[in-house]
Amino acid sequence: MTANRQWIYARKPEGEVGPDNFELRETPVPDAGPGQVLVKTTLLSLDPASRAWMQGATYRSQLHPGDVMAGWGTGQVVKSNAKNLSPGDVVSGETGWQEYSAMPAHALVKHDKKHKPEHLLSALGIVGLTAYFGMLDVGRPRPGETVLVSGAAGAVGSLAGQIAKLMGCRVVGTTRGTDKCKWIVDELGFDAAVDYQNENLDKALKAACPNGLDVYFDNTGGQVLEAALRRMNVFGRVACCGVVSQYNTSTPLPGPFGVPGFLVTKRIRMEGFVVMDFYNRRAQAEAALARWLDEGKIKAAVDVVEGFEKMPSALAGMFAGKNRGKLMVRV
Amino acid sequence: MTANRQWIYARKPEGEVGPDNFELRETPVPDAGPGQVLVKTTLLSLDPASRAWMQGATYRSQLHPGDVMAGWGTGQVVKSNAKNLSPGDVVSGETGWQEYSAMPAHALVKHDKKHKPEHLLSALGIVGLTAYFGMLDVGRPRPGETVLVSGAAGAVGSLAGQIAKLMGCRVVGTTRGTDKCKWIVDELGFDAAVDYQNENLDKALKAACPNGLDVYFDNTGGQVLEAALRRMNVFGRVACCGVVSQYNTSTPLPGPFGVPGFLVTKRIRMEGFVVMDFYNRRAQAEAALARWLDEGKIKAAVDVVEGFEKMPSALAGMFAGKNRGKLMVRV
Repeated sequence: MTANRQWIYARKPEGEVGPDNFELRETPVPDAGPGQVLVKTTLLSLDPASRAWMQGATYRSQLHPGDVMAGWGTGQVVKSNAKNLSPGDVVSGETGWQEYSAMPAHALVKHDKKHKPEHLLSALGIVGLTAYFGMLDVGRPRPGETVLVSGAAGAVGSLAGQIAKLMGCRVVGTTRGTDKCKWIVDELGFDAAVDYQNENLDKALKAACPNGLDVYFDNTGGQVLEAALRRMNVFGRVACCGVVSQYNTSTPLPGPFGVPGFLVTKRIRMEGFVVMDFYNRRAQAEAALARWLDEGKIKAAVDVVEGFEKMPSALAGMFAGKNRGKLMVRV
Repeated sequence: MTANRQWIYARKPEGEVGPDNFELRETPVPDAGPGQVLVKTTLLSLDPASRAWMQGATYRSQLHPGDVMAGWGTGQVVKSNAKNLSPGDVVSGETGWQEYSAMPAHALVKHDKKHKPEHLLSALGIVGLTAYFGMLDVGRPRPGETVLVSGAAGAVGSLAGQIAKLMGCRVVGTTRGTDKCKWIVDELGFDAAVDYQNENLDKALKAACPNGLDVYFDNTGGQVLEAALRRMNVFGRVACCGVVSQYNTSTPLPGPFGVPGFLVTKRIRMEGFVVMDFYNRRAQAEAALARWLDEGKIKAAVDVVEGFEKMPSALAGMFAGKNRGKLMVRV
């Protein structure tokens, strides 16, 4: 068997994350211990939260230099010491940035082989579940309401917006650049797009949300959050999914004006969530997402970079806003 | 009949509010129109939100110079053109800062005469309802949890903390100065007090909340909110009741660090509320508060200033942190 290539988290980022923070290492392919399976990675996910894991403890413990870089992947079982998994099974789990991983069977999710592997890391994976639970259980849009999604061309945002459309809402997305603005409207069915970098946010939101804002699905924090709170209606809701505007820095900004002032006067609920908290209802959400995909009601936008060696540069590209939809690397 | 003295909101505050912003005026006592009653004010409430009403639109429309200063009061009906109210009835409502007001009957609440008038503006009035609904419906403490209340020696905070004690929680309050810290512990039964001006907030909160913080009832915003978010446990709740740290200024500070970052990683819910939104359940809450008062389970701390002419200086004194419990003026 060939060697196992791994990307090691080598140095803590000062400012923006990039290839300098990682080192490629070759080690022997591990063996599957009792109750474990050996997984050969086929696709690896790139996530904004990766940067946060390097910075400090979040909902998971902090990564330390020398660790295999953490991350989610999908692959095939090549050897199994577990009853419920067999060679050839398609699984996903926190494989880390490596070609092979020996993992306990209980830490892996087994998938129906009928699904496209790319979908397992997008609409049918963590980002799909994040969009589903964050929008429906935290944001709770009602038909006819106006929903804003930041990072709308990103992995979670592209799905969150489409789910709000299925709820009968007017859906507006923020993203960067004319091309991505056009793409979320023409391809994903958003009602309007705002280029947060090149438009006056307050004016653009006023034009795009003539009846104000009822739900804001926040992937970014920062200036979009601040403008959304200004535009928000009474009894508005902010589903706090991520803070990508603040991940790629060592010196986060203060919080938005209007917290807690607008929260009181407009009775706004801001609520953070992490997808794992909803895993008891995972099967329900996966079934709904799979049905919507099958029926063509949502599109799983994926952006696949070819080649394991490109992991660090792909991560940097994501923070530069290069991807459309879910970014992943084919190993 | 004597003249009607009124305090007029005369000039918008630049910075802190004080006697300069008001003018005393004498006008004829108004007559009660059809469906109206004439109320002779006996006690007038002073509220932190008064300052916000001068600054801009909140949950109510902005006050403009020349208006009778807005405010809540209790008094006696002296003339009635309404079926459901008679002379001698004890009522409360938004009388404004004046000795007499002609008001539509539907805008007044009629009280059982068995209650102490001071209680009608404290535990049995808006501040009691605010503490009740904000703590129980927004904060939702569970027995054994740790609850922090800012402005704990104030009108709402002193009651919110006592209600959390009834729920079986460890209750910590923030206030200013050793005397008030001692008072909320010795007199109101808080488990611990933190002097936010003279102690290191992070250290003091760590000592006072050894198991972290589950609910924060926020009357202040500002640095206490920021420190509370740092100390908060996973699935913590922040009931946003007011922002007294920011009312008495024309240049509010940015929001707290940790919004929305901590909200995501710790799955915190921050939710603003205004007591009027719960008025459909007013009777239920008033009955509970009256029973707790009768049984000695809560104390209605009141701070009564004698004399209508002292309204503006009493308001300024409240922002200087002089009052203990609910501040009101006997007319």
